[in-house]
Amino acid sequence: MPNAARRSERSRQAILESALALLHESGYADLTIEAIAARAGVGKQTIYRWWSGRGAVVLDALVEQAGASEPPPLPDTGDLEADLRPVIRAIVAELADPRLSATTRALTVEALTSETFAEQVRDRLLRPQLGTIVARLRSAREAGDLRADADLDQAVELLIGPMYHRWMLRTGPLTEEYADGLLDLALAALRR
Amino acid sequence: MPNAARRSERSRQAILESALALLHESGYADLTIEAIAARAGVGKQTIYRWWSGRGAVVLDALVEQAGASEPPPLPDTGDLEADLRPVIRAIVAELADPRLSATTRALTVEALTSETFAEQVRDRLLRPQLGTIVARLRSAREAGDLRADADLDQAVELLIGPMYHRWMLRTGPLTEEYADGLLDLALAALRR
Repeated sequence: MPNAARRSERSRQAILESALALLHESGYADLTIEAIAARAGVGKQTIYRWWSGRGAVVLDALVEQAGASEPPPLPDTGDLEADLRPVIRAIVAELADPRLSATTRALTVEALTSETFAEQVRDRLLRPQLGTIVARLRSAREAGDLRADADLDQAVELLIGPMYHRWMLRTGPLTEEYADGLLDLALAALRR
Repeated sequence: MPNAARRSERSRQAILESALALLHESGYADLTIEAIAARAGVGKQTIYRWWSGRGAVVLDALVEQAGASEPPPLPDTGDLEADLRPVIRAIVAELADPRLSATTRALTVEALTSETFAEQVRDRLLRPQLGTIVARLRSAREAGDLRADADLDQAVELLIGPMYHRWMLRTGPLTEEYADGLLDLALAALRR
């Protein structure tokens, strides 16, 4: 790799790491391009050369973070509900956490505003994250625990859609009890 | 009513009607406070005195419109799925329509950005709109067609959440076939 390319790659990494660190320390509301640039030791122009704004930087940073530590497959103990319960609880807990959910909120606003951004969130962040759930549902379907005609994308939406709706419109509590109830309901729909 | 109050009320009505007419004719993207003011024959300042921005005007206009023609209760033929099918198809069709869904998109962005706005959308627009579905689910529960412990708010989220998630992240088609499949799935979860 020529020196210039290596320097570019080092800057890119520094920018993504700085964005994640700032997000973790102070949340999305306080995250500015200025703050990311200062922490990464680059000029603001360097960031704007590669990204359209903080939403795009955060998406790349989260994708890189997720890719660096690919989630292990879910256990398959033969008990689908028990295997999914911790994952569903974790997603609900993340939505219930004001700091973590501020990032999700920001990405959702960007996705609603730009079709291209929505596709990126879907293909680069969401699909890989939900992939472990889809894989576990697939093995349950093969084992005959789910309806043979169950559409797995639709099955995931049945689990994830209701909690996002509740989170977005604040229509009810996002507790562990809620997570367990939702899982119970969704599986009742999918079982044979 | 004193003359000044009557004039105020007339201006308010003209503003809300103009907002709806413009929304219908050209969609949310082209809706500006300037355009609403011009059509209503008032100054921009009159609008800004009563509303924080176009999102707030549109919310009030939609609430007033919904209130003016309260939706009739759904039929109760004893066949819950048949009674709900046209409503679910209509909501999915509205999300699939680019012009109509631009308004929903805008209201969702505002709701994600402001907690107060989210509460207003929820309490003034969404709950009344979904009320007819809740009422039909309640009579089905009383008739013994649904699980006795079915939480009706959660039941509505199970119907509405997945389609909004699909719409927001463009994860799949929003067709009549999809609407029917979703209804089938959600009712499978709720039946005793």
